[in-house]
Amino acid sequence: MVNDTQKLYEQVCRHARQTAVLRSIEEALGWDERTMMPQAGGEHRAEQMALLSGMIHQRETDRQYGDRLAELAQDSLAADELSETGVNIRRLKRQYEKKIKLPRSLVEELTRTAVLGQQSWQEARRNNDFPAFRPLLEKTFPLKRQEAEALGYRQCPYDALLDDYEPELLTSTVADVLTGLRDELVTLADEIRGSRRRPNVAILKQTFPVDRQESLGREAAGLIGFDFNRGRLDRTAHPFCCSLGPRDCRITTRFDEHLFDSAFFSILHESGHGLYDQGLREDQYGLPLGEAVSLGIHESQSRLWENLVGRGRPFWEYLYPKAQQHFPQALGDVSLDDFFFAINDVRPSLIRVEADEITYNLHILIRFELERALLDDKLKVADLPDAWNEQYRRCLAVVPSGDADGLLQDVHWSAGLVGYFPTYALGNMYAAQLLEKANADLGDLGHGFSRGTFRPLLEWLRKSIHREGQRRFGPALIEHVSGRSPSHASLIEHLRTKFCPLYGIS
Amino acid sequence: MVNDTQKLYEQVCRHARQTAVLRSIEEALGWDERTMMPQAGGEHRAEQMALLSGMIHQRETDRQYGDRLAELAQDSLAADELSETGVNIRRLKRQYEKKIKLPRSLVEELTRTAVLGQQSWQEARRNNDFPAFRPLLEKTFPLKRQEAEALGYRQCPYDALLDDYEPELLTSTVADVLTGLRDELVTLADEIRGSRRRPNVAILKQTFPVDRQESLGREAAGLIGFDFNRGRLDRTAHPFCCSLGPRDCRITTRFDEHLFDSAFFSILHESGHGLYDQGLREDQYGLPLGEAVSLGIHESQSRLWENLVGRGRPFWEYLYPKAQQHFPQALGDVSLDDFFFAINDVRPSLIRVEADEITYNLHILIRFELERALLDDKLKVADLPDAWNEQYRRCLAVVPSGDADGLLQDVHWSAGLVGYFPTYALGNMYAAQLLEKANADLGDLGHGFSRGTFRPLLEWLRKSIHREGQRRFGPALIEHVSGRSPSHASLIEHLRTKFCPLYGIS
Repeated sequence: MVNDTQKLYEQVCRHARQTAVLRSIEEALGWDERTMMPQAGGEHRAEQMALLSGMIHQRETDRQYGDRLAELAQDSLAADELSETGVNIRRLKRQYEKKIKLPRSLVEELTRTAVLGQQSWQEARRNNDFPAFRPLLEKTFPLKRQEAEALGYRQCPYDALLDDYEPELLTSTVADVLTGLRDELVTLADEIRGSRRRPNVAILKQTFPVDRQESLGREAAGLIGFDFNRGRLDRTAHPFCCSLGPRDCRITTRFDEHLFDSAFFSILHESGHGLYDQGLREDQYGLPLGEAVSLGIHESQSRLWENLVGRGRPFWEYLYPKAQQHFPQALGDVSLDDFFFAINDVRPSLIRVEADEITYNLHILIRFELERALLDDKLKVADLPDAWNEQYRRCLAVVPSGDADGLLQDVHWSAGLVGYFPTYALGNMYAAQLLEKANADLGDLGHGFSRGTFRPLLEWLRKSIHREGQRRFGPALIEHVSGRSPSHASLIEHLRTKFCPLYGIS
Repeated sequence: MVNDTQKLYEQVCRHARQTAVLRSIEEALGWDERTMMPQAGGEHRAEQMALLSGMIHQRETDRQYGDRLAELAQDSLAADELSETGVNIRRLKRQYEKKIKLPRSLVEELTRTAVLGQQSWQEARRNNDFPAFRPLLEKTFPLKRQEAEALGYRQCPYDALLDDYEPELLTSTVADVLTGLRDELVTLADEIRGSRRRPNVAILKQTFPVDRQESLGREAAGLIGFDFNRGRLDRTAHPFCCSLGPRDCRITTRFDEHLFDSAFFSILHESGHGLYDQGLREDQYGLPLGEAVSLGIHESQSRLWENLVGRGRPFWEYLYPKAQQHFPQALGDVSLDDFFFAINDVRPSLIRVEADEITYNLHILIRFELERALLDDKLKVADLPDAWNEQYRRCLAVVPSGDADGLLQDVHWSAGLVGYFPTYALGNMYAAQLLEKANADLGDLGHGFSRGTFRPLLEWLRKSIHREGQRRFGPALIEHVSGRSPSHASLIEHLRTKFCPLYGIS
């Protein structure tokens, strides 16, 4: 009997692992598409992707597989929710049950709309032409609403969509946390606006030869622990990180010869994602215990290394002399103080991906509010441009000159990614909460950073987060590790500790 | 009734096309493995490949698909052997019938042995250790014999294996053609050995900065018609060409700063393969009419551009001034005559891939004879080193100092590729026969080459070869295009016309 269940468990795991291998092939094709593929290859690539995703969907919704999972869930193997078998069975069953709720026709319609949506968005963005994009948004949000209804939800439709990115988190919880965060951020941003101190950001806009940027970026990525024997760094238009296998993590960036911080911090950011992927349990590859928890947790890893470590003073105490060696002309005569202030410039801006550590979260809040209103049909797509601009004026005191700098700046909605945005802000909060706890556990980590020692933090993250896989979902994981439920407190503490001295705020 | 058959034909085509899309995914993974993948990714890549090849095999041997093909073959759609439907049905049926002849257990054993064989070969080659490799060869040849028996053959087991690379060609035909070629080549090689003229090959061993080699190589590839909008050039250890889709052809090379000709001619060679792929009919993608005929014909395209065009005097009359601009230090004071003689140096050597246009074919003959003897068990693997060295002594008057420079130099046998070698020599002969006919049809092509005009030849090849797909198999295609059955006559004519003046042979 026990032997039979064990066999059943192995069958289910084999099925899940093979599906993961197929998914990793999708990743390989996606990586190639965004880094290497000649443009003319796009049409055939779409055919390859469609064929694969059909196969993956078939495996994910396979009836026999589902029956086996249901049987296993009744068994003692699944009794202990936190045991290896318990976690894998429970999570796989959850994934299966979500997948079969969506009718195939809806999945295909969503996919088609997302493909067309991205094409339409690219064109609309290029031409600053919202009216051309409007019909697609008007199709997308009702479809997403249909998806939410098919999936079911606890309190509101947005819950169902959010679940794809941060499982089991409720919209109302996110709203509470983010509202608290906003109030604090607005206060801090106002104080900074009132300060007379301003960094000299021209420092970062000198000439930084691309090959040296790449060499310093690689050094920094290696320094924090990215393993280039199990990964690569390549160039792309929109930086991303993906894994083609458990020992094959690819990070990407883009270089601008006249901008230092863009590529450097994107490399650190993607390395942070990569460290998570490289830290997952190989023996659980393709199973929930060997997979990332959520986008929010993934983002916490990238933000932690990019911002909390990489924009911190101790990091540059170690790295700045090397940066000066790489760029003697641009940085030879620039003091560490001036450089450090420049990479921590705070100012309200129009573009999310260029925002500083403080105002970034306000960009997220705006999107979170607008996409909920659109989903609930409380806001018409036709009124979106006005609503967007009004929010920017109110929260950030800036107003886009056109929609290209406004609501057309992000790809997400065009690709049907509704419920995705809040994970960025959650990641920022999780990151601060984790680092605070790591400092409490390990002593002042900054001391090590300033001597180029990052290993203790990485090992702490491996043990606390990476090797835990999906044993707990995001908020539960944060609470388990830090001892407190997720809140904005640590993030605000971090921001005040760093920015108040820089801007002379008492 | 007609409508039903048409529908059946479309179903069969859809099935074949989807299988081709899966194969193109295999190509994408293979390209990545050999150009980009971090070494640690190898294990997972093998899993991805195994999963895909299992899926492909399943589709290729699908019973319903086979039944449909059998039904179609009886229909009027297939009545005209050379019509589009006739070609596709007949070829697909032939492929299907070959595939189902091999028991799954044998396919798996062949695959496993090939994977282990390549690992064992790499190690044995590195350590110059034939005894370590011997057990694998002793397993491979009996397995290949089993494969031949399962497939069936007309005259001898080698026929069945040859069919994978040059369909329907008989071993006895190849033997006749190659023996005739050998006699002529040995005579020509002897005459050259007797000449006192020798090129100054040191010219090609100066410093040639890699980025400029790449830039000249790209220019040359573009010049002969390789379309970089539908393709790429990357670096690898062992140059190859593959297509990830109908508009996504990837060529590769390796650079040596102190060797000009290695990378340059490998780029031309792979571009020749690429021109064939880029010239295939897109509307017939995944169907026999849109696929390359055979390895021999593929090799005819690469050899034609590499040797008959690229090592020809008219080509360099156009390109040499540009080469001098790229490498002023190395080539500024070297005359075109001296350079041209140097890239056409003829001397017997140990390594096939480094051999000149004349002796190259002798390397092939040796392998062709030895692999037939091994397959027929007329030669024991244990006696292979002696047989190899004796053949080299006799045909090329050189003897390897160790097996690494001898029978361990090629990957083919370790990978189970028996019957592959003759296609290289066939390609050389086909190429000469094609170019002779193209010259007859179009007038003196060299005149255009010397002014950088290669389009007429490419268009002639597109029409005569590329867009014909698998309408006819190799030898029949050559006969159809050139009006004569394949023979060594054109190749010998080409070689004598070029090399006799260079070496002062009357």
